[in-house]
Amino acid sequence: MRNIKAILEYDGTNYHGFQTQANPKLPTIQAELESCLMRVLKEPIRVTGAGRTDAGVHAEGQAINFYTKNTIPLERLPLALNCQLPRDIVFKEIEEVPLDFHAQFASQGKYYVYRIYNNRIPSVFKRNYSYFIPYGLDFTKIKEGCSLFVGTHNFRGFSSQKATVKNFTRTISSFELIQEGDIWEFHIQGNGFLYNMIRIIIGTLLQIGRGKRDLASIQRIFVEQDRMLAGQTAPPQGLCLKKVLYP
Amino acid sequence: MRNIKAILEYDGTNYHGFQTQANPKLPTIQAELESCLMRVLKEPIRVTGAGRTDAGVHAEGQAINFYTKNTIPLERLPLALNCQLPRDIVFKEIEEVPLDFHAQFASQGKYYVYRIYNNRIPSVFKRNYSYFIPYGLDFTKIKEGCSLFVGTHNFRGFSSQKATVKNFTRTISSFELIQEGDIWEFHIQGNGFLYNMIRIIIGTLLQIGRGKRDLASIQRIFVEQDRMLAGQTAPPQGLCLKKVLYP
Repeated sequence: MRNIKAILEYDGTNYHGFQTQANPKLPTIQAELESCLMRVLKEPIRVTGAGRTDAGVHAEGQAINFYTKNTIPLERLPLALNCQLPRDIVFKEIEEVPLDFHAQFASQGKYYVYRIYNNRIPSVFKRNYSYFIPYGLDFTKIKEGCSLFVGTHNFRGFSSQKATVKNFTRTISSFELIQEGDIWEFHIQGNGFLYNMIRIIIGTLLQIGRGKRDLASIQRIFVEQDRMLAGQTAPPQGLCLKKVLYP
Repeated sequence: MRNIKAILEYDGTNYHGFQTQANPKLPTIQAELESCLMRVLKEPIRVTGAGRTDAGVHAEGQAINFYTKNTIPLERLPLALNCQLPRDIVFKEIEEVPLDFHAQFASQGKYYVYRIYNNRIPSVFKRNYSYFIPYGLDFTKIKEGCSLFVGTHNFRGFSSQKATVKNFTRTISSFELIQEGDIWEFHIQGNGFLYNMIRIIIGTLLQIGRGKRDLASIQRIFVEQDRMLAGQTAPPQGLCLKKVLYP
């Protein structure tokens, strides 16, 4: 038995998220991967992802692992798998890891980018990979807002009420806003993220950037832990999982 | 009666090219535009494009014109139209022009970019906007090849045998190859392009870049005017109409 770790890139536009859904008619990344792996490795395969991504969210560096008895040389796998997969999912790297490696539990954190397209006119080429915002935003205020999230906080007020975890404390180790012309990129890294957490943080920061909310409200949400006090959940297509961090 | 000129951006991935097809079930840019303009302007509208783009080819700056009796203020049109259009077509600019302006006949040339993604692993995000080439290419040879196309030539050998024109002489005023990491961009400008001409030129240059053809063959194709001597037609998704040139 071998334990295989892989790094994946996918365009989430046409999927109902990473995780297999109860309704098998809904296409998911996991279902595509497992059906492709079964065809290539000739045995049923169960994929473990480092984390779930929501419908419409992308990944440049999702990590997974799976077990196989197949003895196919590793260097042949990426091409064999990529030929079988739809063109919006790609295996970028594959390696054998110790049998006890678990893509989710071994992860020490994740690095995401949220992208905004700030222009008067929408862009057809960026429509699936950014949040289009046709109005002005206060860059300095938003940047200041980002810094307030860095550190260890209770993020219950910044997570979907559908979140099922018990512990809402997370640490954001870095949160940078980089502007290049009409593209704004939020680079956020942390030890873990709650359900919808990044998208709610972005939605809240955008209200600050429009002058519809003050910076002090962020601290209030940390204290009161009330989702209703935070901003709208920003749309999924701006979000991309860049990298899963391992020791 | 007003004559309206507009600049369009579109993602050609899901269309059977710019021009309305005999089979009305095949989606085209022109059919989408005309149906949208009719809804907004409340009269049948016939769109004239500066040029046709093939199925899968994109545009950042296609130019069109159309006539309307509607007196809606011009500044309201882009938003009204973009709200009605599918998200992969966008009106970027709209202006009123003299009644005798014709988007095709007034054009003095076009500027296209053909994009290659030269990497061992395919990219899901570039898959619809570049030609994926996983093998090495000789940059210097290809660049030298580009320069041989500049000038006035008979391009019959570099056009589809389906081309219906009588005059195959065209002038390419500039043809540059720019490499940024694994993205190669061919920037080509000329007074006009025959059916499939750019894609056949690119296909021919790529054979040169792989060492499967010598530079001298380009001159031979100009002389013999035989399509069979040129390279394969490169795929459409790498091609983008950047700008239509007017006096």
